[in-house]
Amino acid sequence: MYNFILNNPTKIYFGDEWYNSIGEVIKEYGSRVMIVYGGNSVKQIGILEKIEHILIKNNIHFIRFGGVETNPRTSKVNSGSLICRNEGIDVILAIGGGKVIDCAKAISIGYFYEGDCWDIIMKKVQVSRALPIIAIPTIAGTGSEMNNTCVISNEKMRMKRGFSNELLQPKVSFLDPQLTYSVNEFQTACGAVDILSHVLDTTYLVSGRKMDMLNDIMESICRTVIRYSVIAIEEPKNYEARANLMWASTWALNGFLKNGVKQLASCHAIEHELSAFYDITHGLGMAIVMPRYYDNIITTQNAHYFEGLAKNVFCVEKDLNSLQAAQEMIGKMKEFFFNTLHLPSSLSELGIGEEEFENMANNICWGQTLPGLEVLSVGDVVKILKECL
Amino acid sequence: MYNFILNNPTKIYFGDEWYNSIGEVIKEYGSRVMIVYGGNSVKQIGILEKIEHILIKNNIHFIRFGGVETNPRTSKVNSGSLICRNEGIDVILAIGGGKVIDCAKAISIGYFYEGDCWDIIMKKVQVSRALPIIAIPTIAGTGSEMNNTCVISNEKMRMKRGFSNELLQPKVSFLDPQLTYSVNEFQTACGAVDILSHVLDTTYLVSGRKMDMLNDIMESICRTVIRYSVIAIEEPKNYEARANLMWASTWALNGFLKNGVKQLASCHAIEHELSAFYDITHGLGMAIVMPRYYDNIITTQNAHYFEGLAKNVFCVEKDLNSLQAAQEMIGKMKEFFFNTLHLPSSLSELGIGEEEFENMANNICWGQTLPGLEVLSVGDVVKILKECL
Repeated sequence: MYNFILNNPTKIYFGDEWYNSIGEVIKEYGSRVMIVYGGNSVKQIGILEKIEHILIKNNIHFIRFGGVETNPRTSKVNSGSLICRNEGIDVILAIGGGKVIDCAKAISIGYFYEGDCWDIIMKKVQVSRALPIIAIPTIAGTGSEMNNTCVISNEKMRMKRGFSNELLQPKVSFLDPQLTYSVNEFQTACGAVDILSHVLDTTYLVSGRKMDMLNDIMESICRTVIRYSVIAIEEPKNYEARANLMWASTWALNGFLKNGVKQLASCHAIEHELSAFYDITHGLGMAIVMPRYYDNIITTQNAHYFEGLAKNVFCVEKDLNSLQAAQEMIGKMKEFFFNTLHLPSSLSELGIGEEEFENMANNICWGQTLPGLEVLSVGDVVKILKECL
Repeated sequence: MYNFILNNPTKIYFGDEWYNSIGEVIKEYGSRVMIVYGGNSVKQIGILEKIEHILIKNNIHFIRFGGVETNPRTSKVNSGSLICRNEGIDVILAIGGGKVIDCAKAISIGYFYEGDCWDIIMKKVQVSRALPIIAIPTIAGTGSEMNNTCVISNEKMRMKRGFSNELLQPKVSFLDPQLTYSVNEFQTACGAVDILSHVLDTTYLVSGRKMDMLNDIMESICRTVIRYSVIAIEEPKNYEARANLMWASTWALNGFLKNGVKQLASCHAIEHELSAFYDITHGLGMAIVMPRYYDNIITTQNAHYFEGLAKNVFCVEKDLNSLQAAQEMIGKMKEFFFNTLHLPSSLSELGIGEEEFENMANNICWGQTLPGLEVLSVGDVVKILKECL
């Protein structure tokens, strides 16, 4: 049986035609806005100013809340929620990458809880309300604009955890592919890997019976990402490429591909430790970890999970058997990440050593094992991390 | 630019695990239910009784409204709306095929308008409210369970027209593939053609620039339908086949594939006349019309629209040029509809002659032309209809 619930009420405005609607849309939800953003890029590309003009024109009060980090932190979230309470904010408008939208989500739910937002992330307290969120993504990657998840880092505890709740689902997202024209080669590449990793690690290469139609669609999304990330890097203002990447990003992680399979995201668990300890970009961490992880877990028994991906996406020869195809795919994946997308291929290149691997592996396995296509011990995880060096 | 809005808030419960939730879900929307259904099949498969037990157990008042026709009619809709008003109904529960869900939609919006519902369908009156709809589809085909469209026939005027409005979007739909186990070979085949026709006629084979990712996904959906309709006909209780068909049906026409392309549905316009005049099953009409329609409109200039479909779905040889591939595809399509699915291949077999073709063609062209990949005159449409004989 496929038993699942799909509920994705986020309204999407796609394209460049909707800027005049933004004021009206916001007013449906409130009149006092906090604009959450990251660094200077939203200023450089002019979107922050453009949106502020729209708000002013619509007599909508707003405050700025910038400086959200690559891996948004509990301290940032807590201060955002506090400011929202003090300022009587009733809508949160996130403009930026996934980190910014994730931070906005955590702020929105932290608004109704005066303690540390980490209590919410770790499910120590119940939550029943959140401020409405409207998102304007400026990078293709996380899919946060159309899902109910945020990933938050606890800098003191060096932990990074995901949290899902339907309260976090953005009410509306405005997707304008042109906003991603200025995303540089490195970030475009990291975004592409991020999208691929969502498909592979949360829905495609996970155990359980998957609906054939959705497997086929997952392969479509992966092909799209591989094809258009290369074009977007070569021609940053190629609308077709940016539009396809943006829409692929949204659909890779908005619940549609789940189809009732238990999502373990084992590779994400490993990478989250790396970015919790070393604050690296998630997509880069995934590029380094994924091929080593898959290389360690492929067996004759599970190779069939890889076959379609290997042959239909990574163009491995059709007449190979599933084990050969899976193994061959690892090479193609590395080639794509490190040669085509030019991402650093090892942790050593990032100045990361093995000092914390044991600690990380223990965190990842919660002291026991890491589930997935193959169950891994702490020792197995340390071995994978060492192979990433 | 791709400029479009996507907004699909229907909550889907997929599988057999959710029957216990139905009572609670309905109570979120009201306490007095009209159950809309068609003929005896919902009694034979036991779903009507099962749902009524659930309603009784949950102290939900309900009335039955059965007998919805193959092509739901304005008279049926008007009487349904009247009964709803008289009985103080606040939720409509549709159990059946697309015709039943479409009829329920029209009743829900007719509830707030005391005149003839045809005025609403023809957009002569404005509508701003509708009763909430919950759907339990029992056949894979129309996708009505997750979209905001209904198609209604006016028996007096011999017209059949679609009407879309976000008020018609079902709040919740329960999709249990097992409910389609008893759908017979003919209806399974018609449903399969219906799904294919939604993809081909409304999003794939239409003019305009389409997002590559979505084209690829449309091909995935078509492959799914071709593969699993054959299996479902051979093994009616094959869960995998029924589940894939059901989910493909929902996604073929829920707005996701649109991507801002103007949807003309030219083939649907032709078939709607056939079923308005002769009350034939829509999927069967589409099977007869589609290959003749495409055969008449393929040109060197538009053949590229067909190429991916021909090669990636209908397995036409990869080295053919786009025109050859498109033409070859027509043969493969006929083979699939008439040999594999065993559907009648001509209007003559249904006892339909050419007497009304001129009238139909005039209705289709609204007295002028029929737009599409190629613009057709009344004479062209008559020619296509004659080739269907």
